[in-house]
Amino acid sequence: MTVARIAVVAGDGIGTEVTAQARKVIEAVLPGVEYQEYDLGARFYHRTGEVLPQSVEDELARHDAILLGAIGDPSVPPGVLERGLLLKLRFDFDQYVNLRPSRLWPGTTSPLAGIKPGEIDMVVVREGTEGLYVGAGGVLHKDTPAEIATEESLNTRHGVERVVRDAFGRARRRERRHLTLVHKTNVLTHAGGLWARTFRAVAAEFPDVTTEYQHIDAASMFMVSNPQRYDVVVTDNLFGDILTDIAAAVTGGIGMAASGSVNPERAYPSTFEPVHGSAPDIAGQGIADPAAAILSAALLLEHLGHPDEARRVSEAVAAEVASRTPGAPLRTAEVGDRVAATAAA
Amino acid sequence: MTVARIAVVAGDGIGTEVTAQARKVIEAVLPGVEYQEYDLGARFYHRTGEVLPQSVEDELARHDAILLGAIGDPSVPPGVLERGLLLKLRFDFDQYVNLRPSRLWPGTTSPLAGIKPGEIDMVVVREGTEGLYVGAGGVLHKDTPAEIATEESLNTRHGVERVVRDAFGRARRRERRHLTLVHKTNVLTHAGGLWARTFRAVAAEFPDVTTEYQHIDAASMFMVSNPQRYDVVVTDNLFGDILTDIAAAVTGGIGMAASGSVNPERAYPSTFEPVHGSAPDIAGQGIADPAAAILSAALLLEHLGHPDEARRVSEAVAAEVASRTPGAPLRTAEVGDRVAATAAA
Ligand SMILES: CC(C)[C@H](C(=O)O)[C@@H](O)C(=O)O
Ligand SMILES: CC(C)[C@H](C(=O)O)[C@@H](O)C(=O)O
Repeated sequence: MTVARIAVVAGDGIGTEVTAQARKVIEAVLPGVEYQEYDLGARFYHRTGEVLPQSVEDELARHDAILLGAIGDPSVPPGVLERGLLLKLRFDFDQYVNLRPSRLWPGTTSPLAGIKPGEIDMVVVREGTEGLYVGAGGVLHKDTPAEIATEESLNTRHGVERVVRDAFGRARRRERRHLTLVHKTNVLTHAGGLWARTFRAVAAEFPDVTTEYQHIDAASMFMVSNPQRYDVVVTDNLFGDILTDIAAAVTGGIGMAASGSVNPERAYPSTFEPVHGSAPDIAGQGIADPAAAILSAALLLEHLGHPDEARRVSEAVAAEVASRTPGAPLRTAEVGDRVAATAAA
Repeated sequence: MTVARIAVVAGDGIGTEVTAQARKVIEAVLPGVEYQEYDLGARFYHRTGEVLPQSVEDELARHDAILLGAIGDPSVPPGVLERGLLLKLRFDFDQYVNLRPSRLWPGTTSPLAGIKPGEIDMVVVREGTEGLYVGAGGVLHKDTPAEIATEESLNTRHGVERVVRDAFGRARRRERRHLTLVHKTNVLTHAGGLWARTFRAVAAEFPDVTTEYQHIDAASMFMVSNPQRYDVVVTDNLFGDILTDIAAAVTGGIGMAASGSVNPERAYPSTFEPVHGSAPDIAGQGIADPAAAILSAALLLEHLGHPDEARRVSEAVAAEVASRTPGAPLRTAEVGDRVAATAAA
């Protein structure tokens, strides 16, 4: 019996190595998944001149989820793979909940002084299909003194409300039940107004969730001075991009940063990928840390309705990371083996 | 003889208290300045219903610089004072260089483990008159399910080139001569392209300055994991808003964060203000730290062509801060007295 159909897009650089471990771990906890590998990314682009052929996207659409490694290489001009593949999937598959948990795991150290494992535990719910990421804008009089370039942030009540409601739901299911809205309402009064009014309206449905508002600049500061204060954070596409990288930094870097680009209704496949990039400098050596990729697989399991398996995988990652000897070299495949064994036990 | 004409806009909350110290220090090092106080901010707005009467703006325009304390109070709806006063001055007075130095001063502690005073020393040159701050955008079908809200980022070659050239000039005058461009060229391809191409073009005029490019998300992470790497950073209006608050956070908070909204040609007055807000919770008690306001006064002195006085003031602030007993209560006026005495000596 096929439990689920997962498309594997390992991608470039260390993407291949870490994704193999993520798949290994899913195999260990959830038998009966069907996998189909798709060759996409910088290498594919150089070979074919294409980023995401329509036929491939159609095939991806027929899967329950996409397990993605890392896409990108300095040899490809900025924007080509991002707009043509990563963002295209987020938009075409209506992945409006971009989910980014950040925890300070035992065995990892925060660059912040005096913060202990367990003290930081938050989820940023980043909007994934609107805002400045829509690509609206243009350039006039390029390379002349009269050149202008525009970018337009598009925000709909529809788009804001659904992600805000999702974030409230997630906050309600957590212990602290606290939700912070981050925007820049004092400058971006149009979009900020829509976000703030929608947030207030949806809040009325969740009287058991406490709420707070912060400007993005203040939130970026608090993320450093007091990250413990955050439980669930909801914010727009660009602010979420920035804030989740700060959250990753204060929890010890992107080594443990997992993400899901989720369509909660499962009308389309959701994509799960580590926040880190393809790291061409260490690719092919078998030394990349697969923790973030495996934690992304845990998000995938959770999304597909396997919360127990998801929990076992994250706990196994936590145990593996806590057991590491600081400074000792790491072998990608061995980490995967250990996590798979623990999670399956 | 009048050396300079300074408009003092002390503003709200602790603005009054800290600005008095900044003025005291300027008086101590540069006699002959003429001061004119302007009552603007939340109190003025509540009393008159106006934010910045045209006649007042015309008067401000006739000064060499504006010494600003803090504007804002929770009683005023978001955006009113920001757009109507702070941003209006930046735009109307063409203050295109928003200057934000960040140093980890002796006597202050970074929240980052293992970073010592002196190790962080950077200046962010934030564009001040374009980007998402222009206020272009709107709302349709407000408070209905069909609502949309837009914000438009407007960027010109003129506007980008002048601030990039200013940043290169500042980098050249510093010891490390390194300039980092921060943007999001892989997603905001239109505006990012303009910034990147302009940066490369201007770089050709400054062969003695080394350069680097980072995406805003990566830069936000590095600002936490490795802030020592930055010397001068140039970026757009919104990214600069966020990045300078992270820079303030890693150098111990906004207690020492000074800023200048500068028109380098001095065609209009430039505004100098601490990055911190009006802090209504501690206002009126004489316990606000005036360090950031006094450091902003040092930027003002530098801008008006008094580099020696500027240096003496910042060194006096550094000495005062280094001499503080950790945990001991602070008196705003006493800090001002001590800095003034040291700087004048
Ligand atoms: C690669 C890029 C398009 C992407 C983004 O900006 O969303 C990345 O930074 C992320 O956070 O997933
Ligand atoms: C108050 C606000 C308009 C302002 C800004 O966003 O520029 C502030 O955050 C700053 O950094 O000076």
